[in-house]
Amino acid sequence: MGRASDSKAKLLKVAFQLIWQQSYGSVSVDDICEQAQVKKGSFYYFFRSKSDLAVAASDEYWRVNQPEYDRVFSTSVPPLERIEGYCRMVYEMQRERYAETGRVLGCPFATVGCELSTQDEKIRRKSDEIFNRTCEYLESALRDAAAAGYLEPQEVTAKARAIFALVMGMLLQARVRNDPEVLVDLATTALDMVAPRALA
Amino acid sequence: MGRASDSKAKLLKVAFQLIWQQSYGSVSVDDICEQAQVKKGSFYYFFRSKSDLAVAASDEYWRVNQPEYDRVFSTSVPPLERIEGYCRMVYEMQRERYAETGRVLGCPFATVGCELSTQDEKIRRKSDEIFNRTCEYLESALRDAAAAGYLEPQEVTAKARAIFALVMGMLLQARVRNDPEVLVDLATTALDMVAPRALA
Repeated sequence: MGRASDSKAKLLKVAFQLIWQQSYGSVSVDDICEQAQVKKGSFYYFFRSKSDLAVAASDEYWRVNQPEYDRVFSTSVPPLERIEGYCRMVYEMQRERYAETGRVLGCPFATVGCELSTQDEKIRRKSDEIFNRTCEYLESALRDAAAAGYLEPQEVTAKARAIFALVMGMLLQARVRNDPEVLVDLATTALDMVAPRALA
Repeated sequence: MGRASDSKAKLLKVAFQLIWQQSYGSVSVDDICEQAQVKKGSFYYFFRSKSDLAVAASDEYWRVNQPEYDRVFSTSVPPLERIEGYCRMVYEMQRERYAETGRVLGCPFATVGCELSTQDEKIRRKSDEIFNRTCEYLESALRDAAAAGYLEPQEVTAKARAIFALVMGMLLQARVRNDPEVLVDLATTALDMVAPRALA
């Protein structure tokens, strides 16, 4: 990797981590450059603004994490186990971050999307786009669950949105309470929303 | 009302509205003073910092809205209708704000709590406290629903947390998508989580 692309990669990674751990408003371009050990001139060579960097960093974070989503939501896994696996992945990721930083950080796209949705249209759209991508994984799993008789086909879209809302809301509570154990029963709660009859 | 208490009330109201509509990080003490038409000296007479004002403004907003919670969650209302009424209140409040501002603002405590939980312990605690107060309303309604046979008593606490998470997650999606209609079926989804058998 050349020096230029190395600087860009460092800026993307550091910006994402700093904004997630703190907030968009509290992190400056100077903070990002300092921690990435990249000169400010290089920053503006790659990005027009902090906002542009945040959008690019969101894409990069999604790109890095997508294989994990593909694995958890693999068609080879029975559909309800995909939902369960997603919830366990969410819990484990938060536990890992907590062990590293002493903080539950919640969902990065929710954090920055919530902070900026009324002020920065590009960031709002990017968060919305990533929310939709996650909902598509859930929806596809629920469509297969419906084909297996666990729920009605006409419930699929609404249930996917509801499970996503549950996960986002629990992540928010975990961040605000700074306690990853808020998420310990997430899989059970989510499965109960899909198919209470299947669990009875 | 004297001029001093009038200034304080204006600061509380303006700070809450500005932070909710934008974000904590993007609103300065100067912005708040300017919009409240209060001098900066008066600000520091009442509040030590923007953080202290945000905490006091959260308490004030809760104080103003609590009668609405008491009405919706009145013991005189059948327990599942309380949950339904809460969800409808959430939807209606967001529609009203959207009609006024063109923006879905979501939950103010979630917005500021999420933005600042890793950086400002007083604000984190205040958001957590207000989340817990709302969960207590839901829990009490569900306890009455359990007594009426709609769910098992041992499910009450977890279901209250799950419904609260659903509501917060849907509010987040509505804010990020800037569409209040995300919340249109919130009551049905929440009731389905409490007692799918009761609705079958």
